[in-house]
Amino acid sequence: MREDSPLTKGTAVNVQNKRAAPIEALQVAPLARPPNYPKAVLDLLGSRLTGRTKRALGDHFGLSNFGVNLTQLAPGGVSSLSHAHLLQDELVYVVQGTPTLCTDEGRVVLQPGMCVGFKAGSDQAHCLRNDSASDVILLEIGDRTPGDVVTFPDEDLRARTDERGWQFTHRDGTPFTDPTP
Amino acid sequence: MREDSPLTKGTAVNVQNKRAAPIEALQVAPLARPPNYPKAVLDLLGSRLTGRTKRALGDHFGLSNFGVNLTQLAPGGVSSLSHAHLLQDELVYVVQGTPTLCTDEGRVVLQPGMCVGFKAGSDQAHCLRNDSASDVILLEIGDRTPGDVVTFPDEDLRARTDERGWQFTHRDGTPFTDPTP
Repeated sequence: MREDSPLTKGTAVNVQNKRAAPIEALQVAPLARPPNYPKAVLDLLGSRLTGRTKRALGDHFGLSNFGVNLTQLAPGGVSSLSHAHLLQDELVYVVQGTPTLCTDEGRVVLQPGMCVGFKAGSDQAHCLRNDSASDVILLEIGDRTPGDVVTFPDEDLRARTDERGWQFTHRDGTPFTDPTP
Repeated sequence: MREDSPLTKGTAVNVQNKRAAPIEALQVAPLARPPNYPKAVLDLLGSRLTGRTKRALGDHFGLSNFGVNLTQLAPGGVSSLSHAHLLQDELVYVVQGTPTLCTDEGRVVLQPGMCVGFKAGSDQAHCLRNDSASDVILLEIGDRTPGDVVTFPDEDLRARTDERGWQFTHRDGTPFTDPTP
């Protein structure tokens, strides 16, 4: 899933600028992880999503109807937890390197110039890993249909969007309870 | 503008297939121009949009919330008539070659790995030309917000989407009248 939530505008650098100049995608500032995630989720993501750098190209130009991330995966890096979207379509295009697409149907190594799409509601959980010795660069595209629900078959985790951004719960809907500081 | 209208499903090859395998983008079948356009519009497009080949990657995977076109421009090719969208965001990423971005602010030659976005309603008409001696490959991404209106500052032409797909009129809203066959 994309963490550049439609409703979390902190990472958008050019929302007010209706006319941004063309830019080298790698010059767009990398995304930080939204600090308002529950600590348990931040810990989970931090321990599992290593070696990745995401740049929100669409946000850079103030686009709000869809997100386009340029995602770099160092060797060993993982793009996301394995997940499926209920309402949002998703497409990944391989710019550079040989990422491994992981789904419940197995693993397949992709080549530059290949693409794969995930139709909303198809329930095909997926992630991309870099099992190679060289960097991978992906374009990840997803729309921002409100009320999306994201399921994570390998985790006790569920997410949905509301007006505050991504909201995470345990799989059964129980809220995360951060430890008292 | 994208001609793979959300409402013109004839070019979608995998709409019923919720799980399509990864594919080399250049192996997706090129789009044909929708035959239901008025003859005057087909003539205009045919005479002006030379040397381009579009492949609807999103449609291939049955995606409907946004379109992703892989667009090849031969030397001298043009991606689209200069146009601006009222409701749909748009982003272009340069995969290969050095296309020239043409806007009312001038012309700028882009390099592979560069991107440019056009916020809905920004009224920034644009197109991409291949003024180089080598092929250009672009990814063009746009959402499919219904009721979009497209303006063409250099043409006596206007388009909007409705449930039938793209509808073209003269700039003042007068319908095109095809010659009686």
